[in-house]
Amino acid sequence: MAKKFVYFFGEGKADGASEMKNLLGGKGANLAEMTNLKMPVPPGFTLTTEVCTYFSKNKGKYPQGCKSAVDKAVARVEKIMGAKFGDPKNPLLFSVRSGARMSMPGMMETVLNVGLTSKTIPGMIEKTGDERFVLDAYRRLISMYSDVVMEKAAGIEPEEGKGIREQLEAELAKVKKKNGYENDIDLTADDLRSLIEVYKKKVKKVLKKDFPDDPQKQLWGGIGAVFASWDGKRAISYRQIENIPEHWGTAVNVQTMVFGNMGFDSATGVAFTRNPATGDSNFYGEWLPNAQGEDVVAGIRTPNPLSKKNKTADTKHLPSLEEEMPKIYKQLHAIRDRLEAHYHDMQDLEFTIQSGRLWMLQTRTGKRNGVAAVRMAVDMCNEKLIDKNTAVMRVRPDQIDELLHPMLDPAAEKKAVYITKGLPAGPGGASGQIAFTADRAEELNGKGMRVILVRNETSPEDVHGMHAAQAVLTAKGGMTSHAALVARGWGKCCIVGAGALEISAEKKEMKVNGKTYREGDWITLNGTKGRVYEGQITLLPAQPGKNKYYKQLMTWADDVRTMNVRTNADSPVDAKQAIKFGAEGIGLCRTEHMFFGDDRIAAMREMILADSESARRKALATLLPLQRKDFYQIFIAMNGRPVTIRLLDPPLHEFLPNREELMVEIARLEIKKPKSPKLKKLRSLLERVEELHEFNPMLGLRGCRLGLTLPEISEMQVRAIMEAACDVVKKKKPCKPEIMIPLTGHLNEMKTARAQALAICEEVIKQKKVKVKYQIGTMIEIPRAAITADEIAAEAEFFSFGTNDLTQMTFGYSRDDAGKFIKYYIENNILPQDPFQTLDQSGVGQLIELAVAKGRKTRPGIKIGICGEHGGDPESVEFCHRTGFNYVSCSPFRVPIARMAAAQAAIRDIEAAKAKKPKKKAKKKTKKKK
Amino acid sequence: MAKKFVYFFGEGKADGASEMKNLLGGKGANLAEMTNLKMPVPPGFTLTTEVCTYFSKNKGKYPQGCKSAVDKAVARVEKIMGAKFGDPKNPLLFSVRSGARMSMPGMMETVLNVGLTSKTIPGMIEKTGDERFVLDAYRRLISMYSDVVMEKAAGIEPEEGKGIREQLEAELAKVKKKNGYENDIDLTADDLRSLIEVYKKKVKKVLKKDFPDDPQKQLWGGIGAVFASWDGKRAISYRQIENIPEHWGTAVNVQTMVFGNMGFDSATGVAFTRNPATGDSNFYGEWLPNAQGEDVVAGIRTPNPLSKKNKTADTKHLPSLEEEMPKIYKQLHAIRDRLEAHYHDMQDLEFTIQSGRLWMLQTRTGKRNGVAAVRMAVDMCNEKLIDKNTAVMRVRPDQIDELLHPMLDPAAEKKAVYITKGLPAGPGGASGQIAFTADRAEELNGKGMRVILVRNETSPEDVHGMHAAQAVLTAKGGMTSHAALVARGWGKCCIVGAGALEISAEKKEMKVNGKTYREGDWITLNGTKGRVYEGQITLLPAQPGKNKYYKQLMTWADDVRTMNVRTNADSPVDAKQAIKFGAEGIGLCRTEHMFFGDDRIAAMREMILADSESARRKALATLLPLQRKDFYQIFIAMNGRPVTIRLLDPPLHEFLPNREELMVEIARLEIKKPKSPKLKKLRSLLERVEELHEFNPMLGLRGCRLGLTLPEISEMQVRAIMEAACDVVKKKKPCKPEIMIPLTGHLNEMKTARAQALAICEEVIKQKKVKVKYQIGTMIEIPRAAITADEIAAEAEFFSFGTNDLTQMTFGYSRDDAGKFIKYYIENNILPQDPFQTLDQSGVGQLIELAVAKGRKTRPGIKIGICGEHGGDPESVEFCHRTGFNYVSCSPFRVPIARMAAAQAAIRDIEAAKAKKPKKKAKKKTKKKK
Repeated sequence: MAKKFVYFFGEGKADGASEMKNLLGGKGANLAEMTNLKMPVPPGFTLTTEVCTYFSKNKGKYPQGCKSAVDKAVARVEKIMGAKFGDPKNPLLFSVRSGARMSMPGMMETVLNVGLTSKTIPGMIEKTGDERFVLDAYRRLISMYSDVVMEKAAGIEPEEGKGIREQLEAELAKVKKKNGYENDIDLTADDLRSLIEVYKKKVKKVLKKDFPDDPQKQLWGGIGAVFASWDGKRAISYRQIENIPEHWGTAVNVQTMVFGNMGFDSATGVAFTRNPATGDSNFYGEWLPNAQGEDVVAGIRTPNPLSKKNKTADTKHLPSLEEEMPKIYKQLHAIRDRLEAHYHDMQDLEFTIQSGRLWMLQTRTGKRNGVAAVRMAVDMCNEKLIDKNTAVMRVRPDQIDELLHPMLDPAAEKKAVYITKGLPAGPGGASGQIAFTADRAEELNGKGMRVILVRNETSPEDVHGMHAAQAVLTAKGGMTSHAALVARGWGKCCIVGAGALEISAEKKEMKVNGKTYREGDWITLNGTKGRVYEGQITLLPAQPGKNKYYKQLMTWADDVRTMNVRTNADSPVDAKQAIKFGAEGIGLCRTEHMFFGDDRIAAMREMILADSESARRKALATLLPLQRKDFYQIFIAMNGRPVTIRLLDPPLHEFLPNREELMVEIARLEIKKPKSPKLKKLRSLLERVEELHEFNPMLGLRGCRLGLTLPEISEMQVRAIMEAACDVVKKKKPCKPEIMIPLTGHLNEMKTARAQALAICEEVIKQKKVKVKYQIGTMIEIPRAAITADEIAAEAEFFSFGTNDLTQMTFGYSRDDAGKFIKYYIENNILPQDPFQTLDQSGVGQLIELAVAKGRKTRPGIKIGICGEHGGDPESVEFCHRTGFNYVSCSPFRVPIARMAAAQAAIRDIEAAKAKKPKKKAKKKTKKKK
Repeated sequence: MAKKFVYFFGEGKADGASEMKNLLGGKGANLAEMTNLKMPVPPGFTLTTEVCTYFSKNKGKYPQGCKSAVDKAVARVEKIMGAKFGDPKNPLLFSVRSGARMSMPGMMETVLNVGLTSKTIPGMIEKTGDERFVLDAYRRLISMYSDVVMEKAAGIEPEEGKGIREQLEAELAKVKKKNGYENDIDLTADDLRSLIEVYKKKVKKVLKKDFPDDPQKQLWGGIGAVFASWDGKRAISYRQIENIPEHWGTAVNVQTMVFGNMGFDSATGVAFTRNPATGDSNFYGEWLPNAQGEDVVAGIRTPNPLSKKNKTADTKHLPSLEEEMPKIYKQLHAIRDRLEAHYHDMQDLEFTIQSGRLWMLQTRTGKRNGVAAVRMAVDMCNEKLIDKNTAVMRVRPDQIDELLHPMLDPAAEKKAVYITKGLPAGPGGASGQIAFTADRAEELNGKGMRVILVRNETSPEDVHGMHAAQAVLTAKGGMTSHAALVARGWGKCCIVGAGALEISAEKKEMKVNGKTYREGDWITLNGTKGRVYEGQITLLPAQPGKNKYYKQLMTWADDVRTMNVRTNADSPVDAKQAIKFGAEGIGLCRTEHMFFGDDRIAAMREMILADSESARRKALATLLPLQRKDFYQIFIAMNGRPVTIRLLDPPLHEFLPNREELMVEIARLEIKKPKSPKLKKLRSLLERVEELHEFNPMLGLRGCRLGLTLPEISEMQVRAIMEAACDVVKKKKPCKPEIMIPLTGHLNEMKTARAQALAICEEVIKQKKVKVKYQIGTMIEIPRAAITADEIAAEAEFFSFGTNDLTQMTFGYSRDDAGKFIKYYIENNILPQDPFQTLDQSGVGQLIELAVAKGRKTRPGIKIGICGEHGGDPESVEFCHRTGFNYVSCSPFRVPIARMAAAQAAIRDIEAAKAKKPKKKAKKKTKKKK
C-alpha cells in the first residue's frame, strides 16, 4: 500500500487522531481529534512529518502522490465549505502552519490568508462585504509571504531589522505618519490599496521577483517554506538545546482561514481549561474582539479576561467574553469540559469567533508552573479525572522545588534590570545588599540587614558569612563547588561561576559589563535560573507545609514509592529540616565541617601539626567530647532513623592556612621584619604545610587513607559516634548509627578499617554497658571499589555510592577545575550534559550496575544507597530505583524532589509490568494506536 | 587411610621424591630424591609440613600417630647404621633441621649432635677413638640446644647479644684467654670437660632447668623448636617480604649425623654444578678439611677451592679437593654430573666427608646472577640438557636487566660505606661527584667530570642536568616521578625518594644521619637496589651486544614470542637505542618533551599567553617546522616500523613559570621596587598563570581536552606529523605514522578529535601528492574509556592502554602524591605491591580485560597495546599476553626484558596447551606427581 502523505480533517471526520503525533505533529493530531469529537474545527488537512523528511533529503522535492493527495484534500475542504480555492466568485482561503511532534514555539514559519490574488479579492470583498478587511488581509499576506517564502527562496540573509518584512513595515509606518494615524485599524481601504502597490513594487525591487498572483503557487510556496524552516538556523539550534532529533521533522497543517477580525461579532482568544499559574479549576483565558490570533499573542492590545471570575483588580473594567458573547462563551465552556474529560489533563486552547461562529484552532496539553501542577493533579484525582498514580506522574520532580523556595515574582522579574548570569547552584530567589567578605556579611546581618555574599569562590572559612547571607554569588566554581554544595545543603539561593564578574574584595566592588556595584548595593538573585538583577525584586514566599495539595500529593507519592529517601545532613538543624521534608534517615553525615568551628579548628590544627602520635592523640582528646555532642544531638534529632556517619574525608591541609598566602607573607616579612619571631613561626608552619602539600589533593592522602595511616583519628571519631549512641540508648531513645569508611579502593583497606572500627565499637559498648546495633559499611566512590565490589562486600554491611568522586575518577575530571571544559563540551555537543549534575548512566552508571551486581552476589542483602549530589536529581534517582538501590540521599531541600522521582520510577515499573502482562494482545493494541 | 606424617629415606630407598616439596620441603624432597638415585645420603626421615600446620594450630601438639611413626623411622635408621639412638655402646646421633617449600636461609632453627648424653658419650668416644672430638660436639650441642630449644621454651627474650648462647660463648672465650689459645681447636679434652660443667651450671642458673640428659627429650625438643621457629619473628617478617603464605609450614629433617671434623681424612664443603657468578660450566665450590658445615659458611676460616680450575690469583696457594682427595673428588664430580643430568639445572650442593667417606647433605637448584643465568641456559641447551623453550624460561626477565647496565662490583660494594637508601628507579651502578643543580651538573660535566645530580625532586627544567649526570638521586618522588621516568627512559642509574636526605641546593650540601656531603664529594649509587654509598666503587661494564649467550637466548625468545615489543621514545637517539635493544616500533612518542628545548619553550609560552586564536596560531606556526623535523628524524630512525605519536597531553601551565615562585617574587618586588616595569610584567604573567592554575591538574585541562578546546594545537601537531611522513615517503623511505589521541573518556571526544585529525591528514596528503598510510587511535587511560570501549572502538583504529593514568584514576591515586601512603600500605600489607610498578590485575586489570573484549566486539581487528610504565614489567607483560594484546611498549632499556617476558608468556601458553591435550590422562598424572 502506498504511504498516506495527507490526512484530512473536517465536518466531524478526520483521518488522524491524537495518538498520531509522530506522524501529524501535535497540532495536526489534535485538530484531527477535535474534529472527531465533533467540535467546530475549520476543515483542512495535514501533510505528514514523513513528507518533511523526504523534502529535506531530496532537496525540496515531494514524494510521489503527495501533490495529488493535496489536490484531493483541497477539493474535500472546498466541498465542505461550499467555496473554491482560487475561485473568483466564492474564494476559499487557507492558513499554512507548522506542527512538530513537540511544540517549538516561534521556531518555524506560518503563512496566513493564502489564496488572495487579484482575481479572488473582488469575490472576497463581495462575500464579506468588507473591502477594507480584505485589503488588509492581502497586505498581511504580502508581508508574511515575501518574508517567509520569497526572501528565503532568494537566499538572502539580511542583517537583523533590515529584512523585506521590516522594509514593508516601514512603508506602512510612513503612511500612518503621513496621515497621523495611531493604529493600523485607522487605515482606510484607499490607504491600503495604494500601500499594496507600494508593497508589490518593493518586493519586486528587493527580491527581484513578482509577488505570486497564483493561489496554487502561494499554497505550495507556503508548504515548502514551512518544511524548509525545519532545517532553518533557529529550529536547529532550538532542537539542539531541547534534544529534539533531526529526523522527527515537522508536519504542515493547511486549514481553512477563519477571521476573528471581521467586525465586532468576531473575536479571537487563547484559554486554559484551568489556571496555569495557580492551578485553580476555573476556566481561564484572554480574548480580543475584532482581532487576529497574533494580536493576542503579540501584546499590542491589552487582552480582555475570558470570564468574570478571571477578572483581577487590573482587569476588572475590561469586558469578559462571558459578558459580551454569553452564548459563545457557554459553547466554549462546554468544549472546555469535554476536552478535559477527553484528554484527562489541562488543555491550552486557541479559538476564533468569526461573525458570531466559534471555531477551535488548537488544543494541546497546557504548560503550568509547579504550584499549579501540584494543585491540578490533586484536584483532577479528586474529580476522578485521573487516578492517584497518574496524579503523581503529572508533576515533574523539579517542579516540586518551586514550592520549597521563595520565588521571584515572575512579573517583577520581567521588568528587572539584568546584570549577568551564572550556574543555578541553589534554587529560589533572594534580594539583599552586597557584602564582599564573610565577616562583613555576618556583621551587616547582625545589624538586621539582608545581605548577599559575593565572592570569587568560597572556602570552609566563609561558612559563617554564607550562613548569615540571604544568598551567595560567586564568580568561579561549578555546580559542585564548595559554595554550591553548602548552599544547596541549606536550601539557600546561590549562583556560582558567574564568570563575567570581576570581584575585588579589597576595593569592595564588583565590575561587570562596564558597570560597578559596591558594598551595600541591592541585588537580586534568581537561583533557579542563575540570573542576577539590580535592586530589590518582590519575592513570593514558600510554604509547602501549608499547601494541602502538596501534602496530599506527597502522601500518594510516598504510598507508591519503594525506595527510601534519606538526607545529607551534618548538623541537628539540617536533620530537623530534612525530617520536615520527609527524610527517612541520614545517608551522609560529613564530619569534617564539624571541625571548622572556632572552638575546634585550633585543636584540629594542633593535631595536624603534632610531630608524634602521642601529641596527636592529645589534641584529638579535646575534639572527642565535641564530636560526641554533635553526634548525640543528631541522633536525638533523627529519633531512631538510621544515621550514616562518614569518617574524616578531606586532606588535612584543608584545615591549615593557605600555602601560597603563607609563602607570600613570609617573603614580605623576610624583607620587612627579618628578625620577628612571627617569621620563625610561620616558617615552621610552612614546613608542615609543605609536607602536606599535594599536587592533586583529590587523589592524595584523604578518605580512609587518612584513617589508616593515622589510625588515632578514626579511633577518636568512632569512639565519639559509639559513645554518643550509647548515651542516647541509655536515655531509652532509639538510635541507628552506621559508620561509613570513605574512599575505599581495595578490600584490604576496608578489612583493616573495619577491624579498627569494630574493636572500638565493641570496647565502648562494653564500657557503657548498653546494647547498640550498628553497621559498618563503605562509600563506593573509587572506580576500583566498584570493580572489586564482590571482594569489598565481604567486609561491608552497606554500600553508599559517592557519585561525585566516582564521576570525577571515572571521567578523570576534577570538579574544581573541569567547569571550563565541561561547559565547552556541552556547548559543542561533546557531552550531552554535566555529569556532575545528572549521573552519566552510560559510563559511571555501568560501573554502579556492576558494583551492585557484584556486591549482592557476595552479600545478597547488602544495603545500597547513593549520597552524591545525584541523589537529588530526578533522572539519577530513577536510575537508582532501576538498579535496585535501597535508598537515595540528598540535601534536605531536594528530599521532596527525590521522593517524587522515586515514586514516579516505581509507577513506571508498575505500568511496564501491566503493559507486559497480557503480552501479545497488548502489543497489538499499542501498535494499532501508535 | 591415615595420613603419613613421617617420610623415611636411606640406603637407596626413600618414601618421598623431589616433586613432593610442598609436603617435605625442598631439603627433604631432595634428600629423598638423592637417596632414590643411590647417592650416599646419611639415612634419616622428614616430618611433613602438615605436621607443622597441626603443631602451629594445636599449641605445640603433634597429630596422632606422629610419635610412633618417628619411633619406627628411628628404628629403620638404627638398622641401616648398625647403631642405636641413646645406646651407651654404639650410639647414633642425629641432626634436626628445618626445610620449607622455599628456601628461607637462616630464618629457622637447627640442632646438631642430638643424642649425646652422659650415657652415650663414653660409647661415642670409644667408637671414634677421639675424646676431644666427642666432648667438643657435646659442648656445641649444649650451646645450640640451650639457645634454640630451652631459652625459647622458657619464654625469655634476651637483649641482643645477651642470650644464653652468647653467655656460654663468653665462658669459652674466658678459657681460651686464660690458656692463651687462639682457636677453638687448641682446647684440650680436659679444657672441654671442665667447660661442659661450666656450661651446664650456667644453663641451669639462667634458664632454671637442667640441660636434658635424655636423647628422646633432646630429639623432640629439637623437632618442636624447628616447628615453632616457623612462627618466630624472623621467619614471619621474612615470609612477609617474600610473600610466602603462612599455611605452607616447614618440614623437619632428622638425619644421621656425619662429621667433617673427625680429623684430616674428614672435610666439608659446598659446591655448585656450574659457576653461579659467570655461568661457566666448570664444577665450582669450596671446602675445608676437618671442619663442620658451619665453618665454611661462617667465614671464620678461608675455604679452599674445590678444583684446580677454581683457583684464582688469591687462592692459588690453597689446596684443592681435587688434589688432596682425588678419589673422593672424582666421586663427587660424578655425582655432580648425575645431578645435573637428573635435574636439568645447575645444583647447589652440600657435602661432608667423614673419615674418607663422602656423604651428600643437600642438593637444590642454585641461585645465579643474570649473566650466569643467560650463559647456563644457552650452554645447557647446547649440551641437550634442556630445550630452547626451557632455556628461555630459565632466565627471569629482570635478570636480563643486569646485562644492560654497568653494575657495581659486588665484592667492592660489600666493603663500601653505606649512606642511605631510596627507591630503585633506574637500574645499574654509577659513581660521580655531587652537583645540586642541573646547571652545575652540566657545567661540571662540561669540564670532563663525572657528576651525580642530587635534587629534592626534578622537573622538566632539570632535564639537561640529568642528561649530563651519570646518575640522579632525589629525596622525594616515587617510581613514576619525573626523575624516575626520565632516567628509566635513558637507562640511566637513578634513585628516588631517598627520604632521609636533607638537601639544600642553596648551601650546596646534603645531610643524612648526621653526616654532611658537599658539592664535589664522590658518591656511588646502586640503582638496582636503591642504595647510596660514599666514594667511588668499581663498576663492571655492560656489553650485551658482545655477549654471544645473550644474543643467542634472545633469538630463541623472539622465535617463540607472539606479542610485539615496542618502545617509548621521544627522540631519534632513543629510537636508535631501542632498535638496538630489539624494539619493533614506537608505542609512545610523547610530544611535550619536544617543547622544552631552548628554541621552543619561548614560542610555547607565547602560544599559551596569547589572548586570541590568531595570536596562538602565529606562535604555533613557529613550532610547526621544528616539530616536523622531530618527526621526520624519528621516522627515518625507525625505518618503516610503526610510530605512535601522542598529541600534546600535559596541562599548559607546565610550560609556564612556577605559580608560587611568581607570587613570592611579586611580593618581594612590591616592597623593594614597587614601580619597576618587571613587576607589571610579572603581574600580568601571574594573571595568566592563575587562569591556568588547577587544583588537581591531573584531572584538569589536558589530553584531548586541550586539543578539543584549542583545536589549533592539535592541528599544528597533526600537520607536522603528516608533513614529515609525506617527506619521508617522498624520499622513497618507508613510514608508518599512528596518531594517538590522549585521555579520551567519551565517544564524542574521539569522534571530534578523529574528524579534526583526519581532515588535516587528508589535506596534507593532497598537498604533498604522496600516499601515506596512517592510523588514528586513542589511549585508553580514563576508566570511562575502558567501560565504554565498545563505543570508542567505532572511532579508533587502535587502543593503547595508558596504564599509568588508568591506575591513577582507577585507584584514585596521584602518582606524585601517593608515594607516602602506598609505602605505608605495602609495609602494612594493605597493598600487595605498588600498582604503578606492577599492574593491579585484580582491579585495573579487570577494566583492561573489559575494554579489550568490548573494543574487539565492535572492531574485531583493533590493534591493542600498552604504553604505560607497566609495559616493561614482566608480570604485567604476561598479563598483556594473556589478555590478547598485540604489543607492549616500554622504555628502551626495558625492551629486552619485555621481549623475554613476552616469550615466557608464550611458552606458558604452549605448555598449558600441551598439558590440556591428552585431557584426562594428563590430569591424573600431574595429580600423582604432585
